[in-house]
Amino acid sequence: MTTTFSKDFDVLAAGERFTTLGRTIGEADISGFATLTGDRHPQHTDAEWAAGSRFGERIAHGLLVLSYAAGLVPFDPERIVALRRVGDAVFKQPVKIGDTLHVEGEILGKTELDSSHGLVETRWRVLNQRGKLVMKADVELLWRRDTMPLVEEPRADTEPVLI
Amino acid sequence: MTTTFSKDFDVLAAGERFTTLGRTIGEADISGFATLTGDRHPQHTDAEWAAGSRFGERIAHGLLVLSYAAGLVPFDPERIVALRRVGDAVFKQPVKIGDTLHVEGEILGKTELDSSHGLVETRWRVLNQRGKLVMKADVELLWRRDTMPLVEEPRADTEPVLI
Repeated sequence: MTTTFSKDFDVLAAGERFTTLGRTIGEADISGFATLTGDRHPQHTDAEWAAGSRFGERIAHGLLVLSYAAGLVPFDPERIVALRRVGDAVFKQPVKIGDTLHVEGEILGKTELDSSHGLVETRWRVLNQRGKLVMKADVELLWRRDTMPLVEEPRADTEPVLI
Repeated sequence: MTTTFSKDFDVLAAGERFTTLGRTIGEADISGFATLTGDRHPQHTDAEWAAGSRFGERIAHGLLVLSYAAGLVPFDPERIVALRRVGDAVFKQPVKIGDTLHVEGEILGKTELDSSHGLVETRWRVLNQRGKLVMKADVELLWRRDTMPLVEEPRADTEPVLI
């Protein structure tokens, strides 16, 4: 596990990559997500209905995959203040019961906001146990900066004293 | 409640709007979402830590808001086959314990894929009980089309018979 998500905003570099632990998606994950969110589409909750569907069985909600990905990325709460934006989350392959997912990610870029915060654009690729891409998303994070130490600099309006 | 999500792809029109029922976000929603997804950032799960944060209290995960919005939109499973893409989901305002959310949505456009399916682009605006926008997202849905009835048309290569 890398420590990308503990780094100071000013140290973080575009191009830096990270990989998370994996997580196996069980039936309880899908039924639990359906119950909690209220998205009870039979593609996720009805094994009989899903047997006759284009996927042939129950599959995970796309938003389960995205939300579990956020659970896998090791955010340091002293650095990552908030998830601000998800751009272009595309669901590429169905996730079936028993599939194991992990996230391979990259820092795409960063933008200073003020002296104490910046925005960091990350790309997340969620892969299954066969290395197939099941989802990708660009996720923008509000990131805490270390406050710059106060440095005593010579004042420009002070003439050097010639002895 | 409108029946937008039961309509045939070919009947659906850009500009059509829909409004969902509301849902109050309780403490159990936030702690349940944290437990299920594994996203246990103290902003969501630790009341003491959150009291000292920029938001002053626990707030809902952005992906909870997006996932619960999907649970509020009344998808007809005979029409909506899958959620294909989430473009530009932006989290505008924190959602606090006790806030009540609903979705105001619009059909932005549609694209034919083949004789039995099309893609429908929708915009979701999630509002709280004070009418404030807390999240917006563009969500692309795979939508089932009614198969066109076979129409017997006069064959162009058949000369009309003059009696």
